[in-house]
Amino acid sequence: MNVTLRGRTRPYRTVTFDAVKNVVHLIEQRLLPHEFKIVATKNFRETAAAIRDMVVRGAGAIGATAAFGLSQGAFEFRGRDLKKFSAHVETVYKTLKAARPTAIDPVNAMNQVRAQMRLGCGVEERQLLALAAAAKFANEDVEHCRQIGMHGAKLIRNGMKILTHCNAGWLAFVDIGSATAPMYVAQAQRKKFHVFCDETRPRSQGATLTAWELAQQKISHQIIADNVAGHLMQRGEIDLVIVGSDRTLGRTGEVTNKIGTYTKAVLAARHKISFYVAIPLSTIDWNLKRGFDIPIEERNESEVLGAWGVLADSHYLPAKQRRAYVRVANPTSGARNPGFDVTPAELITGIITPLGIFKPQELWKHRNELGFKN
Amino acid sequence: MNVTLRGRTRPYRTVTFDAVKNVVHLIEQRLLPHEFKIVATKNFRETAAAIRDMVVRGAGAIGATAAFGLSQGAFEFRGRDLKKFSAHVETVYKTLKAARPTAIDPVNAMNQVRAQMRLGCGVEERQLLALAAAAKFANEDVEHCRQIGMHGAKLIRNGMKILTHCNAGWLAFVDIGSATAPMYVAQAQRKKFHVFCDETRPRSQGATLTAWELAQQKISHQIIADNVAGHLMQRGEIDLVIVGSDRTLGRTGEVTNKIGTYTKAVLAARHKISFYVAIPLSTIDWNLKRGFDIPIEERNESEVLGAWGVLADSHYLPAKQRRAYVRVANPTSGARNPGFDVTPAELITGIITPLGIFKPQELWKHRNELGFKN
Repeated sequence: MNVTLRGRTRPYRTVTFDAVKNVVHLIEQRLLPHEFKIVATKNFRETAAAIRDMVVRGAGAIGATAAFGLSQGAFEFRGRDLKKFSAHVETVYKTLKAARPTAIDPVNAMNQVRAQMRLGCGVEERQLLALAAAAKFANEDVEHCRQIGMHGAKLIRNGMKILTHCNAGWLAFVDIGSATAPMYVAQAQRKKFHVFCDETRPRSQGATLTAWELAQQKISHQIIADNVAGHLMQRGEIDLVIVGSDRTLGRTGEVTNKIGTYTKAVLAARHKISFYVAIPLSTIDWNLKRGFDIPIEERNESEVLGAWGVLADSHYLPAKQRRAYVRVANPTSGARNPGFDVTPAELITGIITPLGIFKPQELWKHRNELGFKN
Repeated sequence: MNVTLRGRTRPYRTVTFDAVKNVVHLIEQRLLPHEFKIVATKNFRETAAAIRDMVVRGAGAIGATAAFGLSQGAFEFRGRDLKKFSAHVETVYKTLKAARPTAIDPVNAMNQVRAQMRLGCGVEERQLLALAAAAKFANEDVEHCRQIGMHGAKLIRNGMKILTHCNAGWLAFVDIGSATAPMYVAQAQRKKFHVFCDETRPRSQGATLTAWELAQQKISHQIIADNVAGHLMQRGEIDLVIVGSDRTLGRTGEVTNKIGTYTKAVLAARHKISFYVAIPLSTIDWNLKRGFDIPIEERNESEVLGAWGVLADSHYLPAKQRRAYVRVANPTSGARNPGFDVTPAELITGIITPLGIFKPQELWKHRNELGFKN
């Protein structure tokens, strides 16, 4: 998507690879929305560190980063000994996997790269196949998001007010995003609409990342506290909800997504507002039998007890010193901080996939076309 | 309620009056939860400023502050000329009223004081009557809250997990609070229970004030982001919801309260969890015919776009310099910030009043006992 800096607009992807210098380029997402910076990771260990330290986050984005990281690591090998090369690649694979051990996307992406590599005979051929496979993975991620956008844009009519939660935008993928893809395509189709971004406490990805994306793309939007959407729905000010998903159960249609998604689905159902979930096929879990069994990560309570931002009236300070964490809450109180919740199929109008829009209860019926493997 | 500072526990009220020095004592609520400080306002103009600048906030608390402020102003008058005295009192009244022009409680409280004053013949007698009436108003506020607590405590059983939103605690009244009153009484009855405090963005009164109160009272509690309650309800971790109200419609049972209350009521209804609203009778509006007509204040967007707190690792700084506002959101985005929402009667299990618990739809039937005046 486009990023405008000091009046100059340029297209960027979240993750790109410089094959000449064997370097991965990433948008430093921890600085957004207050600073836009591209970082270059010069070897696979730096790339793994970028995944681990959340320089890059989001399913598609960390998948592509791991794929490029594996290719980068393969090219770092000097020599022609295939056995030593394979051992080296194994180290690279494990290092990148360990950077975010619970995420499924880096593993899927690296498995695709590794499968391609095995078709090559010598070291050099395998290196080139790794690069080709990683580039293919990234381009397919973009293409899938574009297809989600094409299907989803049909839901957006002129004058609509759309609610989204958290960030399932282009920063979470290689480009264009999942929940935001219908908006970007609708904008390209010259439709006019307005987006409400849920702040999405405690990490505020809606207020920081989604709002930043929409501002760069010049899409009309406003940030609202997570408490506000119910009131707006009651007053007829929201016409459509689109969110992303970290994991969707192919058997039941249940959707795991950022904490608060379930609440918005309950509100939308009460107000008979369409509630859509936009996902790439890679996030469908065909094994799990019920959402209740999805482990819900309890995150650090400091996220709830305070907030990260930049200090007001601090323009004279260097960027690094402007960033600060403030403790908001009572100092002698603790917090609960579950990261995700599960939305049942009955509350979901449809699942927007690259292959079209499906009722959540019908994913299983269409499992073969949707990539189910026995 | 009790406040423990440096190991020493003392009882405090939110608002007290020193009749010897003619000074109002207030808890400086803008410093909570990070600092506990009592401020003394030495004349009625300082008292009005304290109301205006939110040193004191909450229906009952600003009512009592205005009542004491009026009495204080009356005592500031020197002389015996009743006409001049009346003109002076009128100035005091208007000054205190203008401090928070949309609030109804200061006006009600001051009208009670003024009605008493009129029974006196001379200046001095009227001054003494003002003081007596203000003290009576404050004591009645405490007594009403205590009665709310007695009725509400019957709903709390051992082991319960209770959700509350925003701060309808003792800091919002003269003492004990409305939504918190059942908890404090249940604690005195030696019941064990746990409270989840909704953070209540954008101003975070749950994370700051309610959590501070509960910590002082040593009630087991945790702060949660506003996104979390739906998930906890889904997993059976919330048994009861108690909130306060800024305005309850006597004709329809609709409840206006802090933004996000409606969302929690919708969630509670879906999960068949009891949802109670605790109110003093003074907040019942017997005139308005539908909640949709309640004007919803749009507050400053800076509240949504950032957060107030104390800087981490800043113990070496003086208290004032530790407090900071950080901009969290994307700098080029705006926000919507409605302050309140309206919960329909159908979602409310009961209204806890000093006179007992009523179905919201039955307030009108009981209007005579509940203080309706034609």
